[in-house]
Amino acid sequence: PDMEAGTTALQRQSQLTKPVGALGRLEELAVWLATWQGRGRPSMERPRVAVFAGNHGITAHGISAYPAGVTEQMVQNFINGGGAVNQLAGGLGADLRVYEMALDQPTGDFTQGPAMNEEDCALAISYGMMSVEEGFDVMAMGEMGIGNTTSAAALCCALFGGEPQAWVGHGTGVDEAGLARKAEVVAAGLEANKAALGDPFEVLRCLGGLELAAIAGAILACRMGRIPVVLDGFACTAAAAVLHAADARALDHCVVGHLSREPGHARLLEALGKTALLNLDMRLGEASGATLAIQLLQSAADCHNGMATFEEAGVSGPVSE
Amino acid sequence: PDMEAGTTALQRQSQLTKPVGALGRLEELAVWLATWQGRGRPSMERPRVAVFAGNHGITAHGISAYPAGVTEQMVQNFINGGGAVNQLAGGLGADLRVYEMALDQPTGDFTQGPAMNEEDCALAISYGMMSVEEGFDVMAMGEMGIGNTTSAAALCCALFGGEPQAWVGHGTGVDEAGLARKAEVVAAGLEANKAALGDPFEVLRCLGGLELAAIAGAILACRMGRIPVVLDGFACTAAAAVLHAADARALDHCVVGHLSREPGHARLLEALGKTALLNLDMRLGEASGATLAIQLLQSAADCHNGMATFEEAGVSGPVSE
Repeated sequence: PDMEAGTTALQRQSQLTKPVGALGRLEELAVWLATWQGRGRPSMERPRVAVFAGNHGITAHGISAYPAGVTEQMVQNFINGGGAVNQLAGGLGADLRVYEMALDQPTGDFTQGPAMNEEDCALAISYGMMSVEEGFDVMAMGEMGIGNTTSAAALCCALFGGEPQAWVGHGTGVDEAGLARKAEVVAAGLEANKAALGDPFEVLRCLGGLELAAIAGAILACRMGRIPVVLDGFACTAAAAVLHAADARALDHCVVGHLSREPGHARLLEALGKTALLNLDMRLGEASGATLAIQLLQSAADCHNGMATFEEAGVSGPVSE
Repeated sequence: PDMEAGTTALQRQSQLTKPVGALGRLEELAVWLATWQGRGRPSMERPRVAVFAGNHGITAHGISAYPAGVTEQMVQNFINGGGAVNQLAGGLGADLRVYEMALDQPTGDFTQGPAMNEEDCALAISYGMMSVEEGFDVMAMGEMGIGNTTSAAALCCALFGGEPQAWVGHGTGVDEAGLARKAEVVAAGLEANKAALGDPFEVLRCLGGLELAAIAGAILACRMGRIPVVLDGFACTAAAAVLHAADARALDHCVVGHLSREPGHARLLEALGKTALLNLDMRLGEASGATLAIQLLQSAADCHNGMATFEEAGVSGPVSE
C-alpha cells in the first residue's frame, strides 16, 4: 500500500465541497483505492469481474437443491451472456472473465479424505494467480459451483471453529432435511481431515474446491499487483478467509461487496473484521454482489476526482472556522 | 399502479436463471418498477435527478455549522458541475435539474409563527408539481438548504410526536451546543404553531420550507404520472412524510435511496415502514444518496430484462421438481 497516495487523497477529501465525512463510506473507499492503486486520484475506468467455476465431490450427499450439472450449464449461460453477472458487468462496462476449473473432474468427497491432492490444489492456486493480469483498476471476484456453500461452511468451521450448524445455510434453496445433511457433511469432513486443522492452506486443500483455491490465488496475486479486490458472498469470502488465517493483513486490499443472506457470511465477516458495502438479501454468488458494489467504488472515485474544492467553488466553510 | 404489469414481471422473475429470490431486493425492485411504469420489462434508461434549494428563517438561531449563504453558493457549485451530485448523476447519465426557490426570500422564523403564508406554500407545492415532466423513467429527489435538518426535525416531531431531542442530529456538523439549540428551536416551533398540529399540510406550511414543499409537490406529481421516485435522506424524506401523514398509500411509488447518518432518518423510516436501499453513513443531502441508489434500480432492471430463462439457457431446475 502507498501511504503517501492515501494521505494525498485524504487531504483532498477534506477540501471538497461537503462537510468532512458527509459522503461516509464513499470517502473511505476513495482513500482506500488511492492507497492501493498508488495514486492520489484513483481510477475506476477498467474494472474486471472474474468468476471461477468448479465441481464438488460432496454433491453426492444431496447437499444442493440443484444437480451438479448446473455448474457447467451456468458457465455456458455466462458465456452466452444470460446470467445475472453478465447484465451487471455489462451495465458498468466491466470485463467479465469466466474460468472453468476442470468441471469434468470434481474434487474428491471430503467426508472420505482430502478434497484435492497437493498437486491439484497448488495448480488451482497458481491458475488463479496467473489469471490476474496488469491493466485493471479493480477486480470483482466470484464463483460458480454446485455444492460450494457446504465446502465454504467446512472451511469456516475448520478455520474459525464453532458448530457446523452455525456455518451452513439454505444455499441455492435446500429444505430443512438438506440443511441437516449439509451440517453432517461438514462434521464428517472435519473428522476425516483432522490433520489439516491449524494449517490454513491444508484446510483449503482438504475441505475447499478448485474454484475456491483459484480465488485464493487470484486474491493473493492482486495483493502483490496492488489491485483492489471486491469480494462476493459466502463461498468467495470463505476462500479469502484462508489467506486471512495465514496472515491477518492479507485482505487489506479487499472490501466485501455485499452481505449474503447465507447466514454464515455475517459470522464470517465478523471474524474478518469487515463490513459489507451492500445488504440487499442477495445469495446468488457468481460475483453478482461484488459486481454490483463496483458501482459504489466508481461513484466514490467520481466524487473524489470530480468535485470542486471549497476554494475553487467559492463556497464558505463552517462558521466556527 | 399496474398490477398486471407487476404480475407479468413477477412471473418472469421466477423463470430467470437463478434460484427464486436469490437476487433479493433487486427482484423486488424490478417488480416494483414494472408495477409503477406499467410494463412487464421496466426501463431505467432515462433517470432524472431533481434538487430543490431553499433558505430558512430559523438559521438566525445558529442551528447550522455553515452560514445561510452556503445554500446559494452550493447551487452555483451544482450549476458549475462541482458538487457530489454532479459526479453521481454524470456517472449514470442522469439529467440533473436544480430548482432555486427564491433564495433571497427565506421562510419566516417558525419559532415566531408560520414559516410560510398560504400563498407561498401553495406556490412552492405547485412549483414542485410543475417541475415533473413526462419522459422520465425514475426521479431521484433531493434538497439543498442550510438549516433544513432542523425544519425536517420539526416536521417529524409535529407529524409523529416524540421529543424534539429524538429528531434532531448534527446535520452538517454542529457541536453539542448547536444540537441543543436545534432541539430548542423545534420545541419553540411546535409551541408557536400549535394550531397546525393534526393537519399535515398545515404542518408543512408552518414548520417546513420552500424546497421541502416543492419536494412534496414533485412526489405527488410523480405519483399521478406513475413515475417511480427515489427519496434521499432526512430532509427529503421528512417532506415526503407530509404526504404519508395525509394518505398512508401516498408513498407506494417511492423507495428510500439510503439511510442517512442523521439519526432522525432511521426513526422516520420506521414510521413510514420503509427500508433504505443503501447504508453508507452518508449525510450530505443534495440527492446524493438517492442518485447513488438509482444504480441499483438500473441493475435490477438490467438483470430482469437481460437474463436468460432456464428454458432459453437449457439450465436444469431444482432436483426436487
